[in-house]
Amino acid sequence: MSHGSNDTKAEAPGALGEAQLLEIYDFALDLGRRAGKILLDGVDQRCGDEEGRGQNEVDKMNAVDIVTQTDLDVEAFVKNEITARYPSHNFIGEETYSTGNSKEYLVTDSPTWIVDPLDGTVNYTHLFPMFCVSIAFCISGVPVIGIIYAPILDVTYSALTGHGAWLNDSTPSSPAPSHKRRQQLPLVRNPIPVLPEAAPKGCVFSCEWGKDRRDVKDGNMWRKVESFLTMAAESSGRDGKGGMVHGVRSLGSATMDLAYVATGAFDIWWEGGCWEWDVAAGICILREAGGLITTANPPSDIDTDPIEEVRLGSRLYLAIRAAGDSATETGRQAQERVVRETWKRVYNLDYSRPGA
Amino acid sequence: MSHGSNDTKAEAPGALGEAQLLEIYDFALDLGRRAGKILLDGVDQRCGDEEGRGQNEVDKMNAVDIVTQTDLDVEAFVKNEITARYPSHNFIGEETYSTGNSKEYLVTDSPTWIVDPLDGTVNYTHLFPMFCVSIAFCISGVPVIGIIYAPILDVTYSALTGHGAWLNDSTPSSPAPSHKRRQQLPLVRNPIPVLPEAAPKGCVFSCEWGKDRRDVKDGNMWRKVESFLTMAAESSGRDGKGGMVHGVRSLGSATMDLAYVATGAFDIWWEGGCWEWDVAAGICILREAGGLITTANPPSDIDTDPIEEVRLGSRLYLAIRAAGDSATETGRQAQERVVRETWKRVYNLDYSRPGA
Repeated sequence: MSHGSNDTKAEAPGALGEAQLLEIYDFALDLGRRAGKILLDGVDQRCGDEEGRGQNEVDKMNAVDIVTQTDLDVEAFVKNEITARYPSHNFIGEETYSTGNSKEYLVTDSPTWIVDPLDGTVNYTHLFPMFCVSIAFCISGVPVIGIIYAPILDVTYSALTGHGAWLNDSTPSSPAPSHKRRQQLPLVRNPIPVLPEAAPKGCVFSCEWGKDRRDVKDGNMWRKVESFLTMAAESSGRDGKGGMVHGVRSLGSATMDLAYVATGAFDIWWEGGCWEWDVAAGICILREAGGLITTANPPSDIDTDPIEEVRLGSRLYLAIRAAGDSATETGRQAQERVVRETWKRVYNLDYSRPGA
Repeated sequence: MSHGSNDTKAEAPGALGEAQLLEIYDFALDLGRRAGKILLDGVDQRCGDEEGRGQNEVDKMNAVDIVTQTDLDVEAFVKNEITARYPSHNFIGEETYSTGNSKEYLVTDSPTWIVDPLDGTVNYTHLFPMFCVSIAFCISGVPVIGIIYAPILDVTYSALTGHGAWLNDSTPSSPAPSHKRRQQLPLVRNPIPVLPEAAPKGCVFSCEWGKDRRDVKDGNMWRKVESFLTMAAESSGRDGKGGMVHGVRSLGSATMDLAYVATGAFDIWWEGGCWEWDVAAGICILREAGGLITTANPPSDIDTDPIEEVRLGSRLYLAIRAAGDSATETGRQAQERVVRETWKRVYNLDYSRPGA
């Protein structure tokens, strides 16, 4: 692995040394790509060959059966590979929870893998390419390695703490496809663009409708939509709070949303309801790309309360892309400004952990 | 060009014969890919090489300058290529209008090219991959050839009336990249999936927030958001009209939305405000993929009024993916059912043509 120059030098978290982390990163990147190939096999089962032959023969299952089975297959594959190679590490997968009764936060200080075998399940069911494998490796509860692989797009977003974030990184075990260019994130970086002065005006705002569709005024769907509206409305609208964002995007995958904040494609991502396996890899990649991530819910004093580090299991996230310094503020100051401008326009969301 | 079997046999529209249309299709597919490469050059100008070198040197323009210039360059390139090869054909491009005073509907019965050199401009500015070149060739006002090329994704969606719709089609002049699989649309086709019985429940609904952000109760933003809400809410919500769609997607490109309805990734796309150059190619591709497209605005009797063919210049569109036959209804009946179920849940949008 030959990484380019990077300002921050790697410091080995916990008991694991730099060489070990590089090896784990290499393993994880390869694992993500191999897991993605299993997802693609599920796509091929449904599409058949060029002329559509084979769909009926290979499979009597319906689309949902295929998706459910593929999801389970990929998690079993990833878990087996990890436990075979690193038997002392903990493993948390989406299916770890789905089959249990509770969704308690299980991440400890021990080395822990957090895996979503398939983020964007609805997209996968419908063959919309915005789905991916998400693999994170955490030490002391902090994701230090993150891998996102979107198999139809055939792109990898990845990071190892201290080594930067990359599109289509290559490692000894897992070279990127020859037609894919390796690029450091964010994609535009000499210089990294500043955040708009009148942000959120000029920003691309990413958000999801989610699964909570209760039609009640204080339900999450209403809180979300009212927030989206304030972010989108003309500046004079919504009692002068209109955000007039440049665009509103909903992809149906929290993990892909975070990847696109890391690339710089999206300026702001605001979300509630997803789980640590949806975001652990993305948080690592976003941070290594220079992004900021904190909580979705505004604090009591929006203007002055400190902007806290995101809590991995909080289910509430607000991410801002990397920002260049301007003549009047640092990139970090600009990011904090955009966090506060977003908080001014959004409602508190109500997502707790079952059992918490 | 070696197309697979197709039920509908091509009939030469107007005075142009089958051989001529195949030649024009070949030319258009190649033109789309070459135009897309110019868009990619604009991306490279902003990203530099792998280490980010070159961004400052090659370019003193800001992102918006690059985008505006690239947009103009691509339209000029496409127009020059078309007029050199087919001097008797008409040409309508987005820039044809932007520089004029009016947006009158200019498509006549003559052979006419309708081109959007860059659909998804905001996405292009932000380097979000959902942007594309859109090239349509119309006879008697009907798009008979459609080409959509998304250069970062490096995928082509294309169709020639009577020959089916294709992902990554290859022609003598323009072979698809070797790593890209050629597939007929919709992607799942043996059999083509039926539409859900309780649709819009179970459907992926695609919609865009658009540029009209006036914060007034009868403005288009409100009409859209109220419609989105009804499509998304639980079935018992919104006075029993809740659509409980499987997912809500907003990509920021009408052309890409239509392409994903053609592949089957999106079940329903409902939109107002875009123009004929945004949709002409997509309409051709969607129809060849078996999709239905009509108007966004509900008629006076939603249950019984005929479902009219879309008018290209109407700025109001509702598209439904291809649907398989079930035991109780044909695919076309199912599509019409979903059109009516959508109309029941949406507001009339207010988009007129300037000067109309």
